[in-house]
Amino acid sequence: LDYQHVQVPFEITLWIMLASLAKIGFHLYNKLPSVVPESCLLIFVGLIMGGIIYGLNDRSPPVMDSDIFFLYLLPPIVLDAGYFMPSRPFFENIGTILLYAVVGTIWNVFGIGFSLYGICQVKAFQLQDVSLLHNLLFGSLIAAVDPVAVLAVFEEIHVNEKLHILVFGESLLNDAVTVVLYKLFRSFCEMPTIKSVDVFAGVGKFFVVGLGGVLVGLSFGFTAAFTTRFTKDIRVIEPLFVFLYSYLSYLTAEMFHLSGIVAIISCAMGMKRYVEANISLKSHTTVKYFMKMWSSVSDTLIFIFLGVSTIGENHEWNWPYICFTVIFCLVWRALGVLVLTFFVNRFHVNTITSKDQFIIAYGGLRGAICFSLVFLLPDFHRKKLFIAATTVVILFTVFVQGMTIRPLVDLLAVKRKRESAPTVGEQIHIRFLDHLLAGIEDISGHWGQYYWKDKLEYFNSKYLQKILLREYDQPKSSIVLLYEKLERKHAIELAQAGQLGHGLAHPSFLCSAFLCSNSDTTVTTDQKLEDTPNPDVLDNMQEILARNLYRIRRTGPAYNRHTLPGDSEPTEQAKEILILRHKNL
Amino acid sequence: LDYQHVQVPFEITLWIMLASLAKIGFHLYNKLPSVVPESCLLIFVGLIMGGIIYGLNDRSPPVMDSDIFFLYLLPPIVLDAGYFMPSRPFFENIGTILLYAVVGTIWNVFGIGFSLYGICQVKAFQLQDVSLLHNLLFGSLIAAVDPVAVLAVFEEIHVNEKLHILVFGESLLNDAVTVVLYKLFRSFCEMPTIKSVDVFAGVGKFFVVGLGGVLVGLSFGFTAAFTTRFTKDIRVIEPLFVFLYSYLSYLTAEMFHLSGIVAIISCAMGMKRYVEANISLKSHTTVKYFMKMWSSVSDTLIFIFLGVSTIGENHEWNWPYICFTVIFCLVWRALGVLVLTFFVNRFHVNTITSKDQFIIAYGGLRGAICFSLVFLLPDFHRKKLFIAATTVVILFTVFVQGMTIRPLVDLLAVKRKRESAPTVGEQIHIRFLDHLLAGIEDISGHWGQYYWKDKLEYFNSKYLQKILLREYDQPKSSIVLLYEKLERKHAIELAQAGQLGHGLAHPSFLCSAFLCSNSDTTVTTDQKLEDTPNPDVLDNMQEILARNLYRIRRTGPAYNRHTLPGDSEPTEQAKEILILRHKNL
Repeated sequence: LDYQHVQVPFEITLWIMLASLAKIGFHLYNKLPSVVPESCLLIFVGLIMGGIIYGLNDRSPPVMDSDIFFLYLLPPIVLDAGYFMPSRPFFENIGTILLYAVVGTIWNVFGIGFSLYGICQVKAFQLQDVSLLHNLLFGSLIAAVDPVAVLAVFEEIHVNEKLHILVFGESLLNDAVTVVLYKLFRSFCEMPTIKSVDVFAGVGKFFVVGLGGVLVGLSFGFTAAFTTRFTKDIRVIEPLFVFLYSYLSYLTAEMFHLSGIVAIISCAMGMKRYVEANISLKSHTTVKYFMKMWSSVSDTLIFIFLGVSTIGENHEWNWPYICFTVIFCLVWRALGVLVLTFFVNRFHVNTITSKDQFIIAYGGLRGAICFSLVFLLPDFHRKKLFIAATTVVILFTVFVQGMTIRPLVDLLAVKRKRESAPTVGEQIHIRFLDHLLAGIEDISGHWGQYYWKDKLEYFNSKYLQKILLREYDQPKSSIVLLYEKLERKHAIELAQAGQLGHGLAHPSFLCSAFLCSNSDTTVTTDQKLEDTPNPDVLDNMQEILARNLYRIRRTGPAYNRHTLPGDSEPTEQAKEILILRHKNL
Repeated sequence: LDYQHVQVPFEITLWIMLASLAKIGFHLYNKLPSVVPESCLLIFVGLIMGGIIYGLNDRSPPVMDSDIFFLYLLPPIVLDAGYFMPSRPFFENIGTILLYAVVGTIWNVFGIGFSLYGICQVKAFQLQDVSLLHNLLFGSLIAAVDPVAVLAVFEEIHVNEKLHILVFGESLLNDAVTVVLYKLFRSFCEMPTIKSVDVFAGVGKFFVVGLGGVLVGLSFGFTAAFTTRFTKDIRVIEPLFVFLYSYLSYLTAEMFHLSGIVAIISCAMGMKRYVEANISLKSHTTVKYFMKMWSSVSDTLIFIFLGVSTIGENHEWNWPYICFTVIFCLVWRALGVLVLTFFVNRFHVNTITSKDQFIIAYGGLRGAICFSLVFLLPDFHRKKLFIAATTVVILFTVFVQGMTIRPLVDLLAVKRKRESAPTVGEQIHIRFLDHLLAGIEDISGHWGQYYWKDKLEYFNSKYLQKILLREYDQPKSSIVLLYEKLERKHAIELAQAGQLGHGLAHPSFLCSAFLCSNSDTTVTTDQKLEDTPNPDVLDNMQEILARNLYRIRRTGPAYNRHTLPGDSEPTEQAKEILILRHKNL
């Protein structure tokens, strides 16, 4: 027996296996995951495992290594989050998200830090030796809402898209703020005296860390897109580039002390549309599937390790400090959300309701990031107290808040996510309105969201697509892509049902089915089509649809203050329509 | 800048990135890979990289760590090989493969070892201090044909299936022999005296190492299949189990000093059919794609590292010894193949032609396994000579033999692999003949290959499938599965061409297209079908086909010496036919 030789990979594989089997176990009993969030169950499994290890060895089980967490477990989850980020609601609410993430987090850090310092002054609690700076340092790590915990809970409760993106976006983007504040206070702790210059440098760092992360991420993302231009002959390693470049962006950002989370999200969001167009369909399935699988495993491991690490003798149980930490975390977050939302609602037509505000405040779950940060603290005599407080806050938020948020959402009748995907008709209308609003904004001289979106789209189709997409890939409208995807899905379903070729399967039927949201109309259209399956008519419909979709897409750049509608390169447009028509024939 | 912190993952990612980019680079120029095998190009890139590192640091670049090779780089390649192993030709030629792998390898080891010892006796070469045991040890590591190198070359030259499986199967299965002989001679080297007991123990070890590997692999494979029975509700982690269990089988086998390669191959071959039936279609695409991707990356890294490790000062250039090693490797392999094939051909109708024998002998490429083994040698004063000789043998076989084998295959007009997949008609005939031969073997009392295959299939459907497959998955004949797969593929193609529902897509058309190999007939059938698309007739055809395919499959176990055809559970059979008919309606 030669265990030494294979120990490292063997133990890693066994931990992953344990995590996966635990997951299967929960899902065998369907009732369990619908009441208790998976994250709670996994922490529970971790607690049991930790107890067993503690009982057998009679010493604390190994705690989760912060390096392993930040270098190996966190990136897959954030990559998955960034890649599948719904970009429209994200960019529509980017202002609100940034306000919560930056101002809200700073508010929480200083609020929690100062009030805990106040608690420390009470003599009965025997905490006078904890300085203000240490309290602020603790506040900076405990204030950060955790994307992993938020995802785990919010994915199961299906609140409306806007609410989801507000909480989740905040949890992702506050990384930059947390990193800066945490490092700032940590370096202050080690400095003998603090000059005002250092404080100003700290404020400047916010922008460097955040914008630097975006820059690193975008440059790696575009390089990834550019690389996939040349993978036509070796489809098999295409998915690899998506993972390699995003991981490199994360590592590079971490190397330069920038925000790795922001970097990997920008990378994923930046490369997505180009990579998707360049790589093959199977590669894309693999990318999506593997991302989900990887993030799911990482997520599972994180919660199990959280449970395992909780057991042991790393804690100093000073209950007043711990209880007040939990209370302050809740109170300051609630206050912050109330105040910030008041300002947000003054500038928006689409206000955030008080129910939504409650869920935003209540959804501020803490998780493995706080936990890893607290173990990274420099050694000082009260570190074990901070570890204990962090553990309790995490367990409280994940167990109490995580388990009660679903009943609360039901009770308050918070607006839910719509279940069905938008129909092609809706998509066309949304796009039409976008272009209309872009035109109105342009004419009125107000450079709003639609104006910039339109400019970006123009820049994208004019320069980026030419560089990043393969030449023979004609740029396709997202509606045409959706239509193709639905058609493919339908064809597979038909083939599986053995009904292929029974008239029902014509693309035009699909179009009509999706354009008419009324299901009754669909059935009659369907019957009509079956009665008179005239291929010429159907082909014409398809052609008309394709050309009109094309027109809608192209009319965007024509709304311009400096050119008249007819001016914009009519020959080029005509040529492309010709190509499109030729392809249809 | 904090490079220390991210160094390990950063450098690993960069190496993988370099390897992938090198691959893209080769494929941009289509002419290059068609002349020079990719493995040569990769070694070349590695040599350049090694030269740069050597030039910059002025010391030998890091050699490939044997642990990294055996624990992380080799398993994905072997898993891929085992999972995609064409099981029919493999089991049809298992006797010949084992003969080559066991007897052939022993022949080569002792042949090369003893003749090199002879060379060492020539005073002019100054090699008298290399003992017989050291020469045999060297022979044991240099004799092993390398699966990675063989795959890399044989995948590109497309020789016929039998020839391919003979060389490739040998390269996989000789691992057990190499491991035993290598460890035996290494322990002999460290022993003061060798007793005859030790020699006999060594012979016994062959069986333990080989059969133990099979046992470990199969048990993990069946556990994997059993686990995937319960993943219905969490499809996303299904692919993980395939990788985890096969990797665990490899590590477990290595831990017990068994053959890890044999274990992982048995695991992959054992689990494949059950896992495929249990997991979803998308999971399966991910498994296949990711396996290919992973093995391709491993393969690339291995060859690049081979190149990098070649540069440096690890070598002792005693040219007589090195040249004679190359010559003996070629001569003894050629002799071995000739002698063994002589015996094989006496017992087979389907003989191995002399052209095939030449390619088998010439295709005995050495690769990274030898290279890793030579670095694992215990330190003694001539280790650098062995490293130099191994390096030259690997470079000679990969470059000279690898580059000339394709022209030789063309020149000799070796029978090539057929390009098209077998039609459904062919498959039905092959299966029919299998059952016929099984019956003939049973009646004549000759327990041959078909008899055992039939017994195994019976055992499988009677016990294994019930345990390992989900209950609601009715066991399907492989012909029905193939038919479904073709139908699905066709549906996607039609959907992409926008032709869905144009009459052409009916399954019965597909059937006729595949049953009639004559393309002219197909066209006329097609036209006829388009003229009279009567759905009832077509449905009938489909039903008849489905039921008859079923009958063919079931008649197998009825050919039994102990029961008459009518005896075998007629009620059960009738019941299942009823279910099938019910499903068709």
